[in-house]
Amino acid sequence: MTNASRSAVPVTAALLVIGEEILSGRTRDENIGYVAAYLTRVGISLREVRVVVDQEEEIAAAVNDLRCRFSYVFTTGGIGPTHDDVTTDAIAKAFNVGVAVHDEAVAVMRQHYRDNDLTPARLRMARIPNGADLIHNKISRAPGFMLENVIVMAGIPRIMQVMLDEVIPRLDKGRPLQSRSVRLDAAEGDVAAPLAALQLAHPEIQMGSYPFFERDQLGTYVVLRGADETSLASALAALWDVIAREGFSASAADED
Amino acid sequence: MTNASRSAVPVTAALLVIGEEILSGRTRDENIGYVAAYLTRVGISLREVRVVVDQEEEIAAAVNDLRCRFSYVFTTGGIGPTHDDVTTDAIAKAFNVGVAVHDEAVAVMRQHYRDNDLTPARLRMARIPNGADLIHNKISRAPGFMLENVIVMAGIPRIMQVMLDEVIPRLDKGRPLQSRSVRLDAAEGDVAAPLAALQLAHPEIQMGSYPFFERDQLGTYVVLRGADETSLASALAALWDVIAREGFSASAADED
Repeated sequence: MTNASRSAVPVTAALLVIGEEILSGRTRDENIGYVAAYLTRVGISLREVRVVVDQEEEIAAAVNDLRCRFSYVFTTGGIGPTHDDVTTDAIAKAFNVGVAVHDEAVAVMRQHYRDNDLTPARLRMARIPNGADLIHNKISRAPGFMLENVIVMAGIPRIMQVMLDEVIPRLDKGRPLQSRSVRLDAAEGDVAAPLAALQLAHPEIQMGSYPFFERDQLGTYVVLRGADETSLASALAALWDVIAREGFSASAADED
Repeated sequence: MTNASRSAVPVTAALLVIGEEILSGRTRDENIGYVAAYLTRVGISLREVRVVVDQEEEIAAAVNDLRCRFSYVFTTGGIGPTHDDVTTDAIAKAFNVGVAVHDEAVAVMRQHYRDNDLTPARLRMARIPNGADLIHNKISRAPGFMLENVIVMAGIPRIMQVMLDEVIPRLDKGRPLQSRSVRLDAAEGDVAAPLAALQLAHPEIQMGSYPFFERDQLGTYVVLRGADETSLASALAALWDVIAREGFSASAADED
């Protein structure tokens, strides 16, 4: 990955997960956490996730809402060969463009499938909205695509992951947000007041407080986030001062 | 749970997950899968999930969009005592109502906290939008609430779960969707055509096809969903006929 396109302004994204199976509780989604951690690491700030049903109108409406509000929209799911795979048509509808069998997509699929196996169903996976660029994947060969700022990927986690590796170098990135986490064996209610004061004193650092419940005890992770290492170090030192003053039991938790 | 309010029309829901920590990839969400499976089981159809940042305007906008479109909106997260807990105020803003310390909320919190521990920060958790009903929880005592069709719950999974148990009996429910799953050791591209024909022949049953990738082989779960047992049994029998005719290797997968 090159830093050539690294932007000083935040680069933002939304993730649209297309899948009835997540909403019915049949499948536990694995892509949200993966994409969230990945984008954060490369300097793209994930600001919203949606999970919607496999229906063209719903998908198109969500894409059109999100692509105006964020630098990029990533979608997962619904680009396979079956009747419930409607993402490609939904994206074309959102952009008001046509869909056609894409020669290069057919060519890469031929590397994987024998002619007999290139059924009409599989050739549906070579249908790409006009104007989109392919996103290749070395596992199943059937490509995803990128149309303007919308990145359309498979739903199967392993295939989605190689598509993400393939597309990320093409995108703008901001400065990656650094974070430092501290685990406090104290409930949020005891941490809240000093933490609020600390946040006021360090407005350039985003301070999050995440309660947990372990062995019948409430505890709190405090997470400091910022793009500037010096400010982050200063806020972290101030947090440790607060911890010492309040007498909290605490430990660094960045390996979490 | 009583069936008194079991409705013949579908009862729908959206889930709004409030949490920077999910979007940054720091925490893997555990609530989406739990709520999805739970609602499906009781006869409420989850149609959309959103994950948004801890910002009042974002939360209020999402709530106002979703509460008009679905029977219920469930929210998780952001009702704790710290500065980044803004859900209560966001809900009040969405409904354009005030927020006040709720006597009953204070009373239940007194059962759990000694007077010294009822800090101003903790008392923030007794602030409830005007007109809302409390949702109790026996773990931390700080309540969630329900305002019209919006159900506001904690983000900590164990606490969210007891709140869900507490509120579900108050809600309308539809007929629970039954499902039958079959695992096919065949790629979606080979299953697609016969499955599309089967879907056309059984329009009252929703047929989903979910690819998986295991030991370097693509396979497919086919899931049939419907509220009527007879129609479901008939579609399932027809699916097994297709499987026999096509010579697929397959097994029932309902224990998944």
